Amino acid sequence: MTDGIPFAGEPADSHEAIMRATFRALREYGYAGLSIQRIADEADLSKSTFYHHFDGKEDLLLSFQEFILTEFNRIFQVESTGDPEQDIKTFVSLVLDDFPDCVETPDKNAVLGSYVEMRAQAVQNPDFREKFTETDELFARQLVQIIEDGIEQGVFADVNPETVSRFMITILDGVILQSATRNDNPVAEVRDTIDEYIEETLILGTYSSH
Amino acid sequence: MTDGIPFAGEPADSHEAIMRATFRALREYGYAGLSIQRIADEADLSKSTFYHHFDGKEDLLLSFQEFILTEFNRIFQVESTGDPEQDIKTFVSLVLDDFPDCVETPDKNAVLGSYVEMRAQAVQNPDFREKFTETDELFARQLVQIIEDGIEQGVFADVNPETVSRFMITILDGVILQSATRNDNPVAEVRDTIDEYIEETLILGTYSSH
Repeated sequence: MTDGIPFAGEPADSHEAIMRATFRALREYGYAGLSIQRIADEADLSKSTFYHHFDGKEDLLLSFQEFILTEFNRIFQVESTGDPEQDIKTFVSLVLDDFPDCVETPDKNAVLGSYVEMRAQAVQNPDFREKFTETDELFARQLVQIIEDGIEQGVFADVNPETVSRFMITILDGVILQSATRNDNPVAEVRDTIDEYIEETLILGTYSSH
Repeated sequence: MTDGIPFAGEPADSHEAIMRATFRALREYGYAGLSIQRIADEADLSKSTFYHHFDGKEDLLLSFQEFILTEFNRIFQVESTGDPEQDIKTFVSLVLDDFPDCVETPDKNAVLGSYVEMRAQAVQNPDFREKFTETDELFARQLVQIIEDGIEQGVFADVNPETVSRFMITILDGVILQSATRNDNPVAEVRDTIDEYIEETLILGTYSSH
């Protein structure tokens, strides 16, 4: 791992090699098809080396959830430019748009697919549920910060930052779920509406109703 | 099954008994823990009777997806009252609100949890993906119809029914994903904002900006 980027460079150690192998096995066999044998094979490690690092499948999957959320948070991290309007558009664009010029390993859609598969485990697993509740919260806080900056600078309407942020995270979670599980292109259908919502709700001077 | 309701009354036949047993096994063991043995045990049937109805696990899961979507569509079916404002509020309420006075078997949250678990399989499985694309479409069409009625009756603003409908389905999918996979109450946080969105976007005479 280079600079805290889960998939960059050579794996730093066997733990990271196993995490990446789990990602590949998940892509190939789906969640229900994950087995320690398959993951060990992907990582080119023996099962005994595997058990040196993890107590079993459940232990592995909790670590893998952490790993995929680290990557998820890395992808969706916005460095503030000092211009909140720009920052909020960047945030939305990071979730919704493809970046064909920027070759990522693995690509964003693969990470989002794995994110949805792991997230569905939270229906049954309270540990997963706790973690995803926290991540949604972190995700929302990032947006709250941008909105607060915009209000302070007088470029955003005087909305409740918490409320708008949570609503936007709900919309983005909906887009992520749809994109990962449909065979058409749901983003194309809602992209303009999301932009309009931001314009109408937040950005001062765009619409006369503010 | 009584009147096309998947979980009502005694199971009509072994096929339906197996579907209900799959639902119970999914709730108990999670998707990754589903096995034909466990489902046969839940249904109190032998494995050989099971194989009389299904070729194997994949065949079963495709039938089960159909079964859970039938229940999903039944829950979220709005009978038009002739008042589009009422109808759209009923539609949103069906997804977002609990109905403590109405004892349902199984409860709505259990159905939504299973829906999310099945939907996550569509990340890997193209047959599932096709089916969920269709269901989102049916779901959106129901809303388009309500919005078109509202515009025709002059009670809704002259919006693009497709666009608003797809945006609302995205929001509701986001709420469903969050509710099934978080340990707080995400609905409470976005309920008012969704109502406001509907008021501001659709309903004439509420806000001066229309």
